[in-house]
Amino acid sequence: MTRVLVLNGPNLGSLGRREPELYGTATLADVERTLLARAAELGVELRCEQSNHEGRLLDLLEEEAGRAQGVVVNPGALSHTSIALLDAMRAFPGPVVEVHISNIHAREPLRARSRTGAAARGVVTGLGVHGYALALEAVTRLIAAEQEETRA
Amino acid sequence: MTRVLVLNGPNLGSLGRREPELYGTATLADVERTLLARAAELGVELRCEQSNHEGRLLDLLEEEAGRAQGVVVNPGALSHTSIALLDAMRAFPGPVVEVHISNIHAREPLRARSRTGAAARGVVTGLGVHGYALALEAVTRLIAAEQEETRA
Amino acid sequence: MTRVLVLNGPNLGSLGRREPELYGTATLADVERTLLARAAELGVELRCEQSNHEGRLLDLLEEEAGRAQGVVVNPGALSHTSIALLDAMRAFPGPVVEVHISNIHAREPLRARSRTGAAARGVVTGLGVHGYALALEAVTRLIAAEQEETRA
Amino acid sequence: MTRVLVLNGPNLGSLGRREPELYGTATLADVERTLLARAAELGVELRCEQSNHEGRLLDLLEEEAGRAQGVVVNPGALSHTSIALLDAMRAFPGPVVEVHISNIHAREPLRARSRTGAAARGVVTGLGVHGYALALEAVTRLIAAEQEETRA
Amino acid sequence: MTRVLVLNGPNLGSLGRREPELYGTATLADVERTLLARAAELGVELRCEQSNHEGRLLDLLEEEAGRAQGVVVNPGALSHTSIALLDAMRAFPGPVVEVHISNIHAREPLRARSRTGAAARGVVTGLGVHGYALALEAVTRLIAAEQEETRA
Amino acid sequence: MTRVLVLNGPNLGSLGRREPELYGTATLADVERTLLARAAELGVELRCEQSNHEGRLLDLLEEEAGRAQGVVVNPGALSHTSIALLDAMRAFPGPVVEVHISNIHAREPLRARSRTGAAARGVVTGLGVHGYALALEAVTRLIAAEQEETRA
Amino acid sequence: MTRVLVLNGPNLGSLGRREPELYGTATLADVERTLLARAAELGVELRCEQSNHEGRLLDLLEEEAGRAQGVVVNPGALSHTSIALLDAMRAFPGPVVEVHISNIHAREPLRARSRTGAAARGVVTGLGVHGYALALEAVTRLIAAEQEETRA
Amino acid sequence: MTRVLVLNGPNLGSLGRREPELYGTATLADVERTLLARAAELGVELRCEQSNHEGRLLDLLEEEAGRAQGVVVNPGALSHTSIALLDAMRAFPGPVVEVHISNIHAREPLRARSRTGAAARGVVTGLGVHGYALALEAVTRLIAAEQEETRA
Amino acid sequence: MTRVLVLNGPNLGSLGRREPELYGTATLADVERTLLARAAELGVELRCEQSNHEGRLLDLLEEEAGRAQGVVVNPGALSHTSIALLDAMRAFPGPVVEVHISNIHAREPLRARSRTGAAARGVVTGLGVHGYALALEAVTRLIAAEQEETRA
Amino acid sequence: MTRVLVLNGPNLGSLGRREPELYGTATLADVERTLLARAAELGVELRCEQSNHEGRLLDLLEEEAGRAQGVVVNPGALSHTSIALLDAMRAFPGPVVEVHISNIHAREPLRARSRTGAAARGVVTGLGVHGYALALEAVTRLIAAEQEETRA
Amino acid sequence: MTRVLVLNGPNLGSLGRREPELYGTATLADVERTLLARAAELGVELRCEQSNHEGRLLDLLEEEAGRAQGVVVNPGALSHTSIALLDAMRAFPGPVVEVHISNIHAREPLRARSRTGAAARGVVTGLGVHGYALALEAVTRLIAAEQEETRA
Amino acid sequence: MTRVLVLNGPNLGSLGRREPELYGTATLADVERTLLARAAELGVELRCEQSNHEGRLLDLLEEEAGRAQGVVVNPGALSHTSIALLDAMRAFPGPVVEVHISNIHAREPLRARSRTGAAARGVVTGLGVHGYALALEAVTRLIAAEQEETRA
Repeated sequence: MTRVLVLNGPNLGSLGRREPELYGTATLADVERTLLARAAELGVELRCEQSNHEGRLLDLLEEEAGRAQGVVVNPGALSHTSIALLDAMRAFPGPVVEVHISNIHAREPLRARSRTGAAARGVVTGLGVHGYALALEAVTRLIAAEQEETRA
Repeated sequence: MTRVLVLNGPNLGSLGRREPELYGTATLADVERTLLARAAELGVELRCEQSNHEGRLLDLLEEEAGRAQGVVVNPGALSHTSIALLDAMRAFPGPVVEVHISNIHAREPLRARSRTGAAARGVVTGLGVHGYALALEAVTRLIAAEQEETRA
Repeated sequence: MTRVLVLNGPNLGSLGRREPELYGTATLADVERTLLARAAELGVELRCEQSNHEGRLLDLLEEEAGRAQGVVVNPGALSHTSIALLDAMRAFPGPVVEVHISNIHAREPLRARSRTGAAARGVVTGLGVHGYALALEAVTRLIAAEQEETRA
Repeated sequence: MTRVLVLNGPNLGSLGRREPELYGTATLADVERTLLARAAELGVELRCEQSNHEGRLLDLLEEEAGRAQGVVVNPGALSHTSIALLDAMRAFPGPVVEVHISNIHAREPLRARSRTGAAARGVVTGLGVHGYALALEAVTRLIAAEQEETRA
Repeated sequence: MTRVLVLNGPNLGSLGRREPELYGTATLADVERTLLARAAELGVELRCEQSNHEGRLLDLLEEEAGRAQGVVVNPGALSHTSIALLDAMRAFPGPVVEVHISNIHAREPLRARSRTGAAARGVVTGLGVHGYALALEAVTRLIAAEQEETRA
Repeated sequence: MTRVLVLNGPNLGSLGRREPELYGTATLADVERTLLARAAELGVELRCEQSNHEGRLLDLLEEEAGRAQGVVVNPGALSHTSIALLDAMRAFPGPVVEVHISNIHAREPLRARSRTGAAARGVVTGLGVHGYALALEAVTRLIAAEQEETRA
Repeated sequence: MTRVLVLNGPNLGSLGRREPELYGTATLADVERTLLARAAELGVELRCEQSNHEGRLLDLLEEEAGRAQGVVVNPGALSHTSIALLDAMRAFPGPVVEVHISNIHAREPLRARSRTGAAARGVVTGLGVHGYALALEAVTRLIAAEQEETRA
Repeated sequence: MTRVLVLNGPNLGSLGRREPELYGTATLADVERTLLARAAELGVELRCEQSNHEGRLLDLLEEEAGRAQGVVVNPGALSHTSIALLDAMRAFPGPVVEVHISNIHAREPLRARSRTGAAARGVVTGLGVHGYALALEAVTRLIAAEQEETRA
Repeated sequence: MTRVLVLNGPNLGSLGRREPELYGTATLADVERTLLARAAELGVELRCEQSNHEGRLLDLLEEEAGRAQGVVVNPGALSHTSIALLDAMRAFPGPVVEVHISNIHAREPLRARSRTGAAARGVVTGLGVHGYALALEAVTRLIAAEQEETRA
Repeated sequence: MTRVLVLNGPNLGSLGRREPELYGTATLADVERTLLARAAELGVELRCEQSNHEGRLLDLLEEEAGRAQGVVVNPGALSHTSIALLDAMRAFPGPVVEVHISNIHAREPLRARSRTGAAARGVVTGLGVHGYALALEAVTRLIAAEQEETRA
Repeated sequence: MTRVLVLNGPNLGSLGRREPELYGTATLADVERTLLARAAELGVELRCEQSNHEGRLLDLLEEEAGRAQGVVVNPGALSHTSIALLDAMRAFPGPVVEVHISNIHAREPLRARSRTGAAARGVVTGLGVHGYALALEAVTRLIAAEQEETRA
Repeated sequence: MTRVLVLNGPNLGSLGRREPELYGTATLADVERTLLARAAELGVELRCEQSNHEGRLLDLLEEEAGRAQGVVVNPGALSHTSIALLDAMRAFPGPVVEVHISNIHAREPLRARSRTGAAARGVVTGLGVHGYALALEAVTRLIAAEQEETRA
């Protein structure tokens, strides 16, 4: 069965409470519940984790390297600064899709560039928490395509 | 009935022929056919246009301002340079979602920044031509949410 | 009779509808009507054109090179990016005055610099649509002064 | 009666003597005489001051804050460097219009940006000493419009 | 009773041992003891925490969001790099005052800018460990002012 | 008796009138009155001066070099541009503490850097007019510590 | 028979009239006549086009993709700004040689970099209109070499 | 007995699996085994630690400050971004030598600069895992030299 | 008789007291005394002025425009920031030679560039107060050469 | 008889051995042999020199200043860094044409700018060793044109 | 027998005399003597050369291209500026290891980047003259590994 | 007897022939003759050398390190680029004064910064060839002052 790691970085534990006009009112628990339902429909097993610790995100990517086939990640603010996370995402053997709830292209200059995005297959930004579902579908699709290819 | 403008900018007429390892082998006609099918499922009327002329893209956004409720746009390379397109997208009264077939965050520095992205609700990059379908769904959802709100 | 070309660039066709708190509620037709009246008072023949196409603006400047004696131009967003328009304005044999409805010095950094302004005699910014009338008067004055000089 | 402060900054006392091919041969006294005449026509009371001292310009803006309704200012080279003047212009309660005799967009890069321009309603550059008259008309117009609004 | 979180970031556990000519000889325990005494005088309950882990600082800010009314924070070197901490400080519901023991404006360029400072009400730098007391007084004052306002 | 110079730079004479949402409603006279009272408690003699003239601030620092033992200075906007003031503060023989009423770290980029701050012992920003009192206490403390040292 | 597209971009229609001290007095018609003669000698069929419209240049490159074997292009000012033209030149299946009449390395900084040049095999600058003939010979040679290679 | 701390930062736990063409096929366990053997020859006691957590690296440097006499550190990607690690390395009382397995001078610009390198005595890059042995020898040598000096 | 204006800018009144290891122990009075003696030898009348006020320096340059034939100026820190002084020096009809007591090329980056130097004939830096004498000789020589030329 | 200096800079002695996929397999001897043949056809006398020493290139330009009428130069990597060579080329009394075998516009950013190119009449890049022949023809043509002009 | 070229660039002839607190007191002759001894142990033939002439370093690299199998190079200050040396090192057929006696990462910004380092296999900095021995061992090891590979 | 090395760098051999409107018509031989006369008056022995080779300038500085007591150097264009020359000048045991014939502060930006100037005691620019005499006098003075000091 396909397994996908859903990783949320710093400050995403406050989702729903923090700047709701920007990030909406759904909590991380709400988001994960919706994602699990969608995953069930897609026949995908999910592991959902959030951490404020960059190191923990790296540990999880390493730990799931031989277990999950793909990753949906919202690195939060680490997206703009962490080369270590960029490297860990690049080291992950399957497809990684990055999500940002707000549109990073429409905010302050320092948020315009996603450093970690360079290690992702694709990046979905600004579509609110719905972006996670789109990313999950995209990752599932990419995993299937790769399995197809390997089989061929 | 909801109406969405699907706009493709410079060089996207060569889709399928130009750098297929980067952009895939589907032609623009293929992409539009798939999108029309998806639109039919969503109950959305589409107008699909491609132009190599920045001015033509602006004319279309102006022309559809009172007719379509939303826009899916792949500005191609204009994304990185055109403030005129940024302004025209910002002037459009409904939600705009930007698509890039390749992952602009993983290419040359001059492609890392989407200037027009600042006028979009969200940006989907790197998920291949499938990104258009995701963008269409997102725009449809945003239009529905706004109509909901207006009604309330 | 003195002839002046009044050129409006990208997105100025939406004047009055687009961000009225910034650009006011007068439409381009209103602006041109007022200008024609002012021109009549000044004894000046006007040709008013608007295009979203950079190329069309260049064609017009070339076409009017031997006919009009001066130009009033609002290059819109092209002002910040187009070296081609800068060159075409520089190639025009008579005085060119640039107009911006909003004050480009008080907006985002990317709008602070007018590249095309380097090819103008002067630039009037931030005085709303009234800036066109001031520019027209200035151009007319400059043409007269040059004719004076030539005669002398 | 409407009262307008006309402020000239560093080196404008040498007008007519300094780089006449760039700034023309009219002296500051000439300019002020012409402006007073134009002001009389407009029914506006003028106070004309020039100083090479940034601090004096700030003192004058403060002093006239409760007396004049608008300002025409040519900050000279301070335009490119003085945040203090920017702040003082921003603190002035009525409309401020900035004038530059030469076209700052067509000179060395360090003159291309007007920092103080961000605190003005509009900026008129490159139209020679005639720019002062245009600025005076614009300020008068803006004052009248605001009085209209207040009355309504 | 008013409750304030006192947060010290990376390397502040070595206070008193590390570069004493720059940071002084008082240890963090000394600083906290003095602060607790001052807090008692002000009728404020303190929670003092230090961590070398950015993630731990974020966890603490989140945990105290509903409990403490204000924060005194010395982010150490994270001040110059961490957008995640900037976001967490911005998400905290009460006033945050930032302290730096040394004067960051007088050190290497990379220390001149406090990124996290943008999320603080104020920043006190260069006044040695005494800066903590000043910050505590300021935070207490700001909390009182806000409670006043709410009551009114 | 300890003597401290309190220096306020450009535009601080308008305190209370200028952008009160940013700088508060207390006037400079209010601030100085409060400071004098606090100085009396601390047994410190104050000289309070404000000038819009950079040169006057330099003259005062020179004049008080042999008389006052310390300085509290709010250079206003000169903080971001004046190397001359930086040099004069560095030349002053006693401790200098810089104050900014608003939080310069949270404003436009051009205000983020305090050039003069490099010549101060410490900088207090964003704590409103209360920052002056904190700075006065800090300067007094630093003077006392130095006298202690000299005596030992 | 070998077929080469000769493409001239914005403002090159004014050749001979515009800044003749920089670009010479030969008109575009003169240049094309000379090139056709040289092409006849080389046994090459030419299609010569000029447009002020970036979009038109892209359309032509697309249209000739399956017909011409090589391109000589003078992108004019687009050379410095257009990523869309860069992409279109890169998408063209045969060799492209870029020409600039003036020496871009000896002009203003903004003209020093040819962005489109990165998609060309070679760039000839500063040799006047004679550069077109050199470019035509070079393209012809490159086409021949490639045909040689394919045959081998 | 001389004691040296060998510290490996983020992603070095994946050594041998991650980008082997760049980092080689030896695992971290292999590297540490070889180093322990070399240390035994040199009569040096080693403590080998790896962590993906910046905070953990700081904790270890603090903990070993009074115990180990020197450090060999490969900060991984933190080398390019972490001022906190720079400070902690600078605070360590004995010599620190930094190692990079790949040649950071020959990779992307963002990897060309080692920020933490400024706190090291020396930096060895690009010599593969063999670089650790060279660094260990160098640190041992530096410790011996310092003990020599102290004794003298 | 040849007349030369010797102008000293901000903080030069503290010469001899301020950072003597950098600027020496001679006071400005000493410097002027020496210069007057040297001027007497050269048959040159001197006017020596110092001001901390940029505006005063401009006033003096304007005032002496028709009286002195040359200027020796040490603009102090204004050298690095004042475009107004640059303009005033450029407006002065005779030769201007700039002096810096310390070597600006060997200090902090912000002192490396002399903006005002662009309006001087030459710049003498780093040769201590002796530089004034060299500058005076050079100015005298340049005045003589120009008078020669005029006579011829 | 017309005499042309052909100058090759650093590393061009390795032509044919160094990165042949970039520079081709022809050696410098081959290139010079071909050029001599072409020169014979054009009735031009050639002097061909190569040196790895910047100073030697300058010596040669100086030495040939009164003997050769033109120069073909490939400065190699000095093109990007040497202002001394730029000056020497500018000092040469006849036309200089610069050649680069590879297309510098399509390589790393540090090779995109030719500093020396500013002193050349024209620059030919990317056309392989054939570029030398084109440059020789261009220089010969420019010499002839100048002689024509002088004669007239 | 393995042969290695040891190349020292500008100013390294003054080793032992120049800034001994930074570079130590060993002369270049001392360093070369130690290296020759170490080479004898490793069974490696050395050629040691120093030159202040960039061109001479290039000549030597070219000359030894077919003779030595590896290079140890300390380019001195050329490391930061010479693209010609970078190219010559890249053109050398065997492994090159770069040495810097001082730690370039801990000095002025202009020394932080080694341009030539991009053409080396590895770079050893800051370990004093002992770095040469480490580099020699590393180069010998790399040559052996390559010979191994070739044989296999 | 005091001995001074007078060093002239690249292109100064062409003095009098190269850009005489900028550098004057005196040849280097003229300059050296004048300097020798002035040296005789000052009782100073001169060695005058010019070279286009950076390496030669370094050799000479090394060679004269134990013989001459001071240096007058005009590094020509190397002033803006050569860190090697900067290092060699810094390594010279006596005072070095740098001369530029033209005013580098008034030319292109790339000439505004003298990198080598940081290793000089002082820099004299823009005073024509007369600058050499001023530099010689200054160096002689500095040598005398140092001898004085040593004796004391």
